[in-house]
Amino acid sequence: MSWNSFGRVLRVSTWGESHGPAIGALVDGCPPGLTLSEADIQPWLDRRRPGGSRFTSRRGEPDAVRILSGTYQGRTTGTPISLMIDNVDQRPSDYADTAYRPGHADFAYDAKYGLRDPRGGGRSSARETASRVAAGAVARLVIPEVTIRAYLVELGGDAIDRAGFNDAAIDANPFFCPDPAAAARWERLVDDARKAGSSLGAVVECVATGVPAGWGAPVYAKLDAELAAAMMSINAAKGVEIGDGFAAARLSGEDNADAMRAGAAFLSNHAGGVAGGIATGQPLIVRVAFKPTSSILTPLQTIDRDGAETEVSTPGRHDPCVAIRGAPVVEAMMALVLADQKLLHRAQCG
Amino acid sequence: MSWNSFGRVLRVSTWGESHGPAIGALVDGCPPGLTLSEADIQPWLDRRRPGGSRFTSRRGEPDAVRILSGTYQGRTTGTPISLMIDNVDQRPSDYADTAYRPGHADFAYDAKYGLRDPRGGGRSSARETASRVAAGAVARLVIPEVTIRAYLVELGGDAIDRAGFNDAAIDANPFFCPDPAAAARWERLVDDARKAGSSLGAVVECVATGVPAGWGAPVYAKLDAELAAAMMSINAAKGVEIGDGFAAARLSGEDNADAMRAGAAFLSNHAGGVAGGIATGQPLIVRVAFKPTSSILTPLQTIDRDGAETEVSTPGRHDPCVAIRGAPVVEAMMALVLADQKLLHRAQCG
Amino acid sequence: MSWNSFGRVLRVSTWGESHGPAIGALVDGCPPGLTLSEADIQPWLDRRRPGGSRFTSRRGEPDAVRILSGTYQGRTTGTPISLMIDNVDQRPSDYADTAYRPGHADFAYDAKYGLRDPRGGGRSSARETASRVAAGAVARLVIPEVTIRAYLVELGGDAIDRAGFNDAAIDANPFFCPDPAAAARWERLVDDARKAGSSLGAVVECVATGVPAGWGAPVYAKLDAELAAAMMSINAAKGVEIGDGFAAARLSGEDNADAMRAGAAFLSNHAGGVAGGIATGQPLIVRVAFKPTSSILTPLQTIDRDGAETEVSTPGRHDPCVAIRGAPVVEAMMALVLADQKLLHRAQCG
Amino acid sequence: MSWNSFGRVLRVSTWGESHGPAIGALVDGCPPGLTLSEADIQPWLDRRRPGGSRFTSRRGEPDAVRILSGTYQGRTTGTPISLMIDNVDQRPSDYADTAYRPGHADFAYDAKYGLRDPRGGGRSSARETASRVAAGAVARLVIPEVTIRAYLVELGGDAIDRAGFNDAAIDANPFFCPDPAAAARWERLVDDARKAGSSLGAVVECVATGVPAGWGAPVYAKLDAELAAAMMSINAAKGVEIGDGFAAARLSGEDNADAMRAGAAFLSNHAGGVAGGIATGQPLIVRVAFKPTSSILTPLQTIDRDGAETEVSTPGRHDPCVAIRGAPVVEAMMALVLADQKLLHRAQCG
Repeated sequence: MSWNSFGRVLRVSTWGESHGPAIGALVDGCPPGLTLSEADIQPWLDRRRPGGSRFTSRRGEPDAVRILSGTYQGRTTGTPISLMIDNVDQRPSDYADTAYRPGHADFAYDAKYGLRDPRGGGRSSARETASRVAAGAVARLVIPEVTIRAYLVELGGDAIDRAGFNDAAIDANPFFCPDPAAAARWERLVDDARKAGSSLGAVVECVATGVPAGWGAPVYAKLDAELAAAMMSINAAKGVEIGDGFAAARLSGEDNADAMRAGAAFLSNHAGGVAGGIATGQPLIVRVAFKPTSSILTPLQTIDRDGAETEVSTPGRHDPCVAIRGAPVVEAMMALVLADQKLLHRAQCG
Repeated sequence: MSWNSFGRVLRVSTWGESHGPAIGALVDGCPPGLTLSEADIQPWLDRRRPGGSRFTSRRGEPDAVRILSGTYQGRTTGTPISLMIDNVDQRPSDYADTAYRPGHADFAYDAKYGLRDPRGGGRSSARETASRVAAGAVARLVIPEVTIRAYLVELGGDAIDRAGFNDAAIDANPFFCPDPAAAARWERLVDDARKAGSSLGAVVECVATGVPAGWGAPVYAKLDAELAAAMMSINAAKGVEIGDGFAAARLSGEDNADAMRAGAAFLSNHAGGVAGGIATGQPLIVRVAFKPTSSILTPLQTIDRDGAETEVSTPGRHDPCVAIRGAPVVEAMMALVLADQKLLHRAQCG
Repeated sequence: MSWNSFGRVLRVSTWGESHGPAIGALVDGCPPGLTLSEADIQPWLDRRRPGGSRFTSRRGEPDAVRILSGTYQGRTTGTPISLMIDNVDQRPSDYADTAYRPGHADFAYDAKYGLRDPRGGGRSSARETASRVAAGAVARLVIPEVTIRAYLVELGGDAIDRAGFNDAAIDANPFFCPDPAAAARWERLVDDARKAGSSLGAVVECVATGVPAGWGAPVYAKLDAELAAAMMSINAAKGVEIGDGFAAARLSGEDNADAMRAGAAFLSNHAGGVAGGIATGQPLIVRVAFKPTSSILTPLQTIDRDGAETEVSTPGRHDPCVAIRGAPVVEAMMALVLADQKLLHRAQCG
Repeated sequence: MSWNSFGRVLRVSTWGESHGPAIGALVDGCPPGLTLSEADIQPWLDRRRPGGSRFTSRRGEPDAVRILSGTYQGRTTGTPISLMIDNVDQRPSDYADTAYRPGHADFAYDAKYGLRDPRGGGRSSARETASRVAAGAVARLVIPEVTIRAYLVELGGDAIDRAGFNDAAIDANPFFCPDPAAAARWERLVDDARKAGSSLGAVVECVATGVPAGWGAPVYAKLDAELAAAMMSINAAKGVEIGDGFAAARLSGEDNADAMRAGAAFLSNHAGGVAGGIATGQPLIVRVAFKPTSSILTPLQTIDRDGAETEVSTPGRHDPCVAIRGAPVVEAMMALVLADQKLLHRAQCG
């Protein structure tokens, strides 16, 4: 069952609430003998960390990770790796209100459990994604043959110009945007939204190169099905597509076909690197749609726990566009899926 | 692991190849005491069955299901329900060629397993989805409170007019199309594609009403993550979105918020019935993008098993738009996810 | 969940009732490329088949297995292998009575499910173990490096003389007994029990040689824990021990220690081939205690479904000592566990 | 997969090494709304804690547990409960030697992983069982209808007198022994073993009363199979039996039958409370054989990592009879199995 676990052989379980004492990830099934210390994880956490720019939450979390188990003398032992991140800038008092915040999980959690942790969404907070990034850093060590890159291709409805795609630009702006011109426009978009007490959505694209043909599996464990679940499990995700995705539904059979030539060379990659649930060896391409941040200053109509009608506005320290920090999380989920698939593939096929 | 299984408490495993002697589904974890006979399953299979119109494959499969275990005197006993469907119109000789069909899983299977069953794609054929529909019929019995409806909202890039949405129309045309005017246009589109040796893609939407607030779970077992995996596991699916999906990425926070009023009444449903991975009680809305059928008459460049360049055209009896028969499959997957979630919810929350 | 499934990578699901139309096993996760036909499975089924001697049930089941999927041209393809065995000698009329048979699962099934299939115990019948033997035959192909041998070491409280252990004798008597003198004594024991309308229990020992050091895993997936579950899941099993088992509880630390010498040579094998849940490379030794068959002619006090007191005697065609046919089942479970562990080990450790 | 996880709905994952900074348990799937604080867990840990008498290890661990997540205002929220116990009395220097300790997992871990954490056995140490006891304390809250009691029935081959069974005596001696006369004898036995640099084994019996008929499930998820796996996964366990266990193999069918009378009253309980894998409503009875502690002062022949022959004696602070502290661990595993089965039962059967 394991509502809070992900993966099959490389299995990650995360725990912790946004304003509790700590959060963490438990990584089971990691191959032994990999070089691993906090220094292998921290840089990835730093990319996701709030407070990096005025375009993200001002919550001051160092997100310093500690490895509590599973390594000896700097190498993984094959036993569970317990990763822990202390919460140091909790402000539970920001969340005294019991009104359900529209777009949030407040109402749904209450409906399910008959109670909830109201401190910043508790378990439903995007703070949980720090645990994913920490675990994803471990997963990357399992798949050195693979390179993973996520970036925003659209923000607030404003798409990048694919002709201006520049890999080097991605880390040179606060939006993980590969198109410097778009990044410049997005600055204003996000500033305007923030000042208006509003928020914006975005689309993150993630490409994994170096995935060998054969990883993945058919039917219910399809590589694309695993990726879809992985990505849709990220806070605020509302859509996932592989390769041409929804656009493929508008192509003819011959235009969508990825013809092949000698050397297992494909002449196109409409499929996004997967066929029948199994990697083709081409770049694996996924896009994830993120809705705008639900926590906004603009007052919204809602009800409280007693069903009484009220208004709610959320004054906390929230990201005006949660998708920005979603990019490192998408990368982490891609790494987790692929590391798991690598181990699964060698289980069955040697 | 269970590459060919789906679900947690209500768990379905399917087996069988397109041109083998039979296919089947094994349904474990079904509650006891439900009235079940072949007559509860057959109508759903008949909706998916090929040969219903000139717009689907002409393969003549009666798809007659037999229940081999798990019932006694017409009621489920709580033990595994074995469902079997004989293949009666196999034509393995249609598949003598070893060339990899572009867009198909041929190359990927060979890369993974070092061999494959070439008879109509073997396990990767959409024929497998008959097993899903049979299992889905059992799942429906577990959730009598829920009504599930799938239909095509776009075919070959031609979208329905939402203003003309007519629930009664869905079963009155060969396209599961709720807009009669669109259905009329699609006849020509599909006829043209078929005659041209081409194929078309489409988008299927599925709505489940009656899902109680509280079904689903947080984090990695989110209801939307389970749905994403379920839908992406269907043959030819390339994209999944929940509620407003990719369009939500273009909305502002306040436009995307589903405000609430007394009586847990929502003023909109941008979320598509799920928040934080848990059902809100609103209609659950999923859309699935299907690529055009890969098996087409138009010759395509490819290679054979030895890596030699060649051309391949697929003369078999294929659907010009596989998404049409995808609608009953999407419904089945929705039923399987929801039945499983119902049982999971009562496991944890009583 | 999968109440009727076993294994992690190599995963077997069984289905079918004792007096239904058929029983079967679905084997998922099998490596591709293994040579497999019905001829690889049938001999193992024949060893377990009833009717082989007057010491087993006289139910006339040929137990002819059919492979319905998962192979192509005589080799496994990596997709699910569906195995089916028709029931041809059902006699549901033997089971008209609704009284709960003491020692049987009748009462417990009714308490759980609110109904049950009374025909010979339905799903709780030892007939289910034919499916295990069929699946175990597939598992054997995955582990050609391992030799598995099960035999009875005690029957009706009469133990073999270890000094007279003769591997060649095991298949030369109807009791899988390695000690010909004991086998001769057991003939009379079983005959007497059968004539008296009684039944007997026995202890089966199983040894697997060739298991490489390193298979297995720590903590909750210990090789011995997996074996314990596997063996205890067999009908009528009431105890499982590894190596010296309960006798180890009476040894001193130094007497129980398996000292080592150069070449990873152990000077003894009290541990039964496993330490910390991981194989040591020594022979893996398991013993399983089987209670006497519950279905006996001797009338027993019981109640019926309405709670009324009554007597029941079971006139069907039952084994006077179900443990005899348990030996091939124990072998099958050993093969299933080890094949799964081999695949799991290479998943994590390459 | 989850080598370090246990359970299906109520799922526990443990982590940590004997001489690392901390150990812990992550409990997922716990029902919401249960009253839970550290005070509900600590007493159970204290029962298992070393240093309670001269008959257990002198390692000074307070075993103070902290709840890091999953509760709000003293109640469970339905999200993962992270439990952490700091190691405060590590002495890694006790374990400088690389020689494989006979009976330990040292050699097997090295064979599997190619390396190991030598500090006190690392992950293979019985210190891990503190995590089980902490998780078991949570599980007990899920099953208030059940009473669980474990005690030693045999130590060093010296069995209790069942006629002298006194429930009140169990916690009145350092051996969890229900027979005061036996407890007095065991004092000398253990003292002698300790002084001789030796160790002893024992048999723990555990009885759960109040388990409703119907918990459990058939075939591979049998209640007794789950219990067998749970118990065999405990360090030093070598055998498990249910009800009469191995003795049942020596009974006749009529002597082993548990006859029934009106009111679902059983006249005996040879079955130990389970039939066909499902609870009968009678007391659930399990016995677990523990081998003598492997870490002893007496020098033993062994090899080191390089294969060179040597001797090893283990001077650490070890239990002369690890089974004594096994009793609380057996109780914890019983609680974990039953809590999980309760949730599973209501998943399928409502």
